[in-house]
Amino acid sequence: MNITIIGLGLIGGSIAKDLRKAKFATHLTGVESNSHHAEEALQLNLVDQVLPLEQAVMKADMVILAIPVDKILQLLPLILDMIPAGTTVSDMGSTKKTIAEKVEKHPKRRNYIAAHPMSGTENSGPSAALEGLFANKITIICDQEKSGPQHLALVEKMFQVLGMNIAYMSSDEQDHSTAFISHLPHAAAFALANAVQVKEDRSIIFDLASGGFQSTVRLAKSSPEMWGPIFQQNKAYVVESLEVYIRHLKELKESIQHDEARMYELMSHANKIREVLGGENPSLIKNEETIVKFYTK
Amino acid sequence: MNITIIGLGLIGGSIAKDLRKAKFATHLTGVESNSHHAEEALQLNLVDQVLPLEQAVMKADMVILAIPVDKILQLLPLILDMIPAGTTVSDMGSTKKTIAEKVEKHPKRRNYIAAHPMSGTENSGPSAALEGLFANKITIICDQEKSGPQHLALVEKMFQVLGMNIAYMSSDEQDHSTAFISHLPHAAAFALANAVQVKEDRSIIFDLASGGFQSTVRLAKSSPEMWGPIFQQNKAYVVESLEVYIRHLKELKESIQHDEARMYELMSHANKIREVLGGENPSLIKNEETIVKFYTK
Repeated sequence: MNITIIGLGLIGGSIAKDLRKAKFATHLTGVESNSHHAEEALQLNLVDQVLPLEQAVMKADMVILAIPVDKILQLLPLILDMIPAGTTVSDMGSTKKTIAEKVEKHPKRRNYIAAHPMSGTENSGPSAALEGLFANKITIICDQEKSGPQHLALVEKMFQVLGMNIAYMSSDEQDHSTAFISHLPHAAAFALANAVQVKEDRSIIFDLASGGFQSTVRLAKSSPEMWGPIFQQNKAYVVESLEVYIRHLKELKESIQHDEARMYELMSHANKIREVLGGENPSLIKNEETIVKFYTK
Repeated sequence: MNITIIGLGLIGGSIAKDLRKAKFATHLTGVESNSHHAEEALQLNLVDQVLPLEQAVMKADMVILAIPVDKILQLLPLILDMIPAGTTVSDMGSTKKTIAEKVEKHPKRRNYIAAHPMSGTENSGPSAALEGLFANKITIICDQEKSGPQHLALVEKMFQVLGMNIAYMSSDEQDHSTAFISHLPHAAAFALANAVQVKEDRSIIFDLASGGFQSTVRLAKSSPEMWGPIFQQNKAYVVESLEVYIRHLKELKESIQHDEARMYELMSHANKIREVLGGENPSLIKNEETIVKFYTK
């Protein structure tokens, strides 16, 4: 199968690696606006060739957009215009509602599957691509009733090849949940990195940084080019999540100042995250060998 | 050398493992108020015996307190009362100023070294103890001029055996820096875990949690018994750091809402944490083989 990947960074490059290894892709074409990245992707053998957008799209069985969400918003309608009638298109963006609305009325809307594979690292570019990045992680497919069943099946099969479990929901639900679970932690890490950097005596403070600090601000190293457009496209829910978070920080701060018993209650409540994150969640159906299982709320 | 460790949890247990392996300790005695933990520590061979406090302290060359900081505040003066004239005492607590003030006038003040080895995990208890937990991490020694040179040398030698680099500062400086670098990230993680748990639809949101989320809230699993007393003892600086953080969160939130250019500036500034955390810092002198090097501001 001919697969075209738009954007050969961490996500696009990692998908390319796994799809080639599994022989799901027999021919991989890349589209990459950064010529240095294009070269690097060819050297790393992520794709067989790099072509201009229109050429790359015309011969593909499936087109995958793995670029920042503002770029997806621009390119997705153009790509739907270009593709032959049978081609499947999917995007890997972290926001879905604005993008889904943009192509809502497109005559080839049913060729498109709105997806959000939840995996990544704080690194970017072709050299950040990793084999197995998506294994045992979850991908969200949004508004699946708006996609043609063959296109949906092909994208589900691809995620299965990547080793992912699939959750189905509306694009509005996905943006709300993702704001709390992914966008908020990134915003919190950016702010934490800035808060710590105001301390005057910077040399010593960073010498002291231990493992706990490093894992907390790891996300603050993430690319503004990727995250800025996410915060903008999901503005309402990201702002809501930040407001909830600030409220909880203030409550903890005030309990530290004035109410020790309450402070312990808040910490014990936070500890419950261990249970929810630790164990197996029976409501999630795992990807098993060759059977695609559906997880519908 | 006979070493007595008060508290056989993550920190005390990990110290025991490394000191035994390096033969720095030839006989290890534990003091543990939790009888289940005492049994577990013996089964894991962390210590040779568990004794009541007074007995354990009387025969030790060195006594190490690895218990929550409120317990250190209670026990340290009693232990200094009990020990023979030549015994060295050190504590591993995350706060130093309140503890240092408490023993300021103690006749055996020079037997005591105020220390804070910066390493840990979110787990607790004897079974959480790890070999090599402290390797290549930094330990802070506070107010070293108030300790006797032989006692200081012995504690420095112990940290060297653990593979740690040593930074020297006043207990006030340590509490201020540690508030930003360690206590704030923990408080932030507790609040984040609580903020995320308010979302009604809890089953789906935790299914979706990807690696980024897990590493950010990892610290929220930390023990309230350890962290509550830290927040209380370092209240002024922890509250200051939370206020700085909340200000930065609000600024980021407002930029997302009203000022995209500013949002990108804030994210790029946060990215600088990559440089400071990533590279070698020439100002830090690393522990090298058998030579203790001093790092003084």
